[in-house]
Amino acid sequence: MKKVGVAILGLGVVGGGTYEILTKNREFYQKTQNVDISVECVLELNRERALKLGVPEEKIMSNIAEVICNPDVNIVVEVIGGIDAAREFVLAALNAGKTVVTSNKELFCKYSHELERAAKRQNAGLYFEASCVGGVPIIRTLLDGLQANHITSMMGIINGTTNFILTKMSNEGISYEEALKEAQALGYAESNPVADVEGFDAAYKLSILSSLAFHTKVPFSKVFREGITGVTREMIADGKELGYCLKLLAIGKQTDAGIEVRVHPTFVRTGHPLAAVNDSFNAVYLTGDAVGEVMLYGRGAGALPTGSAIVSDVIYAATHSEIRYSTFKNTANAEKDVRFPSDFSSAYYLRIKVSDKTGVLAKIAALFAKYNISIVEMLQKGEGETASVTLITHETRELAIRNAVSKINALEVASVESVLRVVS
Amino acid sequence: MKKVGVAILGLGVVGGGTYEILTKNREFYQKTQNVDISVECVLELNRERALKLGVPEEKIMSNIAEVICNPDVNIVVEVIGGIDAAREFVLAALNAGKTVVTSNKELFCKYSHELERAAKRQNAGLYFEASCVGGVPIIRTLLDGLQANHITSMMGIINGTTNFILTKMSNEGISYEEALKEAQALGYAESNPVADVEGFDAAYKLSILSSLAFHTKVPFSKVFREGITGVTREMIADGKELGYCLKLLAIGKQTDAGIEVRVHPTFVRTGHPLAAVNDSFNAVYLTGDAVGEVMLYGRGAGALPTGSAIVSDVIYAATHSEIRYSTFKNTANAEKDVRFPSDFSSAYYLRIKVSDKTGVLAKIAALFAKYNISIVEMLQKGEGETASVTLITHETRELAIRNAVSKINALEVASVESVLRVVS
Repeated sequence: MKKVGVAILGLGVVGGGTYEILTKNREFYQKTQNVDISVECVLELNRERALKLGVPEEKIMSNIAEVICNPDVNIVVEVIGGIDAAREFVLAALNAGKTVVTSNKELFCKYSHELERAAKRQNAGLYFEASCVGGVPIIRTLLDGLQANHITSMMGIINGTTNFILTKMSNEGISYEEALKEAQALGYAESNPVADVEGFDAAYKLSILSSLAFHTKVPFSKVFREGITGVTREMIADGKELGYCLKLLAIGKQTDAGIEVRVHPTFVRTGHPLAAVNDSFNAVYLTGDAVGEVMLYGRGAGALPTGSAIVSDVIYAATHSEIRYSTFKNTANAEKDVRFPSDFSSAYYLRIKVSDKTGVLAKIAALFAKYNISIVEMLQKGEGETASVTLITHETRELAIRNAVSKINALEVASVESVLRVVS
Repeated sequence: MKKVGVAILGLGVVGGGTYEILTKNREFYQKTQNVDISVECVLELNRERALKLGVPEEKIMSNIAEVICNPDVNIVVEVIGGIDAAREFVLAALNAGKTVVTSNKELFCKYSHELERAAKRQNAGLYFEASCVGGVPIIRTLLDGLQANHITSMMGIINGTTNFILTKMSNEGISYEEALKEAQALGYAESNPVADVEGFDAAYKLSILSSLAFHTKVPFSKVFREGITGVTREMIADGKELGYCLKLLAIGKQTDAGIEVRVHPTFVRTGHPLAAVNDSFNAVYLTGDAVGEVMLYGRGAGALPTGSAIVSDVIYAATHSEIRYSTFKNTANAEKDVRFPSDFSSAYYLRIKVSDKTGVLAKIAALFAKYNISIVEMLQKGEGETASVTLITHETRELAIRNAVSKINALEVASVESVLRVVS
């Protein structure tokens, strides 16, 4: 039976989960995968933590060189997170010819070109299933399951923290601040929540997933990004009334105009499979030219789900002889002939505060007509001086909406309180 | 660039879709997969059909020997369906050392041991992604994406015809017979619908999928099977009232008692991801010890979705050097030490017709108590002589329910009109 030695760099949440799965299931993998996978060592400065997880004292290393020089280590699992140390250690491992498995979305998003070059040079493998959507095997599916398809569109709920917050707000009618506090208390959000709530985390993942789906580097800098900090109770209540759930969607599309990549709060029509993805669950909804619509759903984070993705990569690397490293064109930047249009089309929700004067609605309607925006549904609420109008448009252009909104705001008798994109 | 020649046996719906994808996307696969896949020939007696699909005359064969002897054919795609000819042709291809890709669930379910033996002998590949759940890459996911997990449970809506019928009945309040007629008119159901509506099709797929998930042969004969022909408008209406959708579920579980495999109409609580799977869509909901809950959703049938799965197998076979054939223990029967318990536990829905006499409910309640069945929810409808009671039980044993039902039917003052299993 083939023997494979693994080193785990970092025994935090995910590292601990990975250690647990690999040690508990060792015999199971011998039987079902015909491979003997042993954890040869871990790199962890906090010896107490490692001992508590059951790692034998002699396997706890505090120096990357000890790991890299160990001839029994074939696969290095990087679960440190962040950039600096992680990048240095991963490059050191690859340069030593070790296969690397990483869960580090920021590192892979920003430095995949450098890591892939090093891997290629040494004929070492480089795997990153755990970098996107935790336990959901979305990367394997793109590479090995839907590879017969031109993927035309991808819509994902790929950040569990924001989905938890939006679900709480929707179910309990509480404010963003209250929901964030709960998420922090439960460990779903960090004390500095910026990476999640401003959409950075989702944008890293979208950059990786759309690069794979569209077979070309989609740099992080091309991702349009809007977080959920501006989401209000009123928006969510309006959405419910109109038949929509509010989700932070990551959207990637390949159209004749180029590749669209964007992360923003979005109304999703109730009944759409993505509308039923609640709490900290994640999902990716893909459209391919042959397969049509496919959705993958599951846990996007957590020790064991992310550990499942890492161990899946370890087994894949151990049981396939093709070295996999170059997954899309090996470059830091987009290829020159790929366009990333700043305009795109979508349906929209608008909430407009209007003065109750004759002719206000007519003025707004005239502006919409001028920009070729047509209305699907309109709802007027409140009376007297503080009436508000909420409406859903047909598919239209983002720039048309922005122009119309600035013209409405210039009217003095009306102001646009919120604008959200809508998926039916 | 590696060159791979494909032969397609049968140009029916799926064969036609496969031909279309392979020819349309040939350049795309050269660019993205670094492999040149050409359709070298097709086996089709109806030459008109083949010509209409654009197959050049000289590539249309009418004899399997011509296909097998063609040295440019590396991969044989079997999409004839049925058993006799398909089995003969697949064995002939494997014996000639060709890799086989098949969409034939009945063949693979019943003869996988024979096909795998032949493949192993010749070191030929054997792939069957398209045999289960059409375009949804469920088999690749089990083998390459969730292989780090002990899968403990699998619940699937894996027959599109029955899901279409049940969705129609639910949305439009029509009878089973009316919904079946519509499904037949739209081509979703065959003129002889038995294989779908009696659950045979789902049971073949469940046998294959649970063999993979549980790493041991689960023969078709072990699958408990109940179709949807007994489903009434009243059941569906009762379910709605109680907060459930009716689905034909295929359930596989690995418990301490053994492997449970069963196909039957099931009430699924609204809000469960499977409850939102409508029309002809399919989905599989898995639970693994590390990953937790994962769901895959998509089109379970159709020319292009099933073609997507076939071409995915062709590309996988063409780009991986590991020959994949023996997916679980190579045997026609279950291993001796694997148990398939006939009893299992579930929640239940019962609809009981009762005479409006004093003490009837007390008698029924006493019977439930006797068999340790406790009630979550009860609803009494109608008054006078034709009252009916619908109820949902807590998790209980199948045999306890069967005993209680036969005792209730013996009461004379009550009769059980329907019994369904329930998933919360």
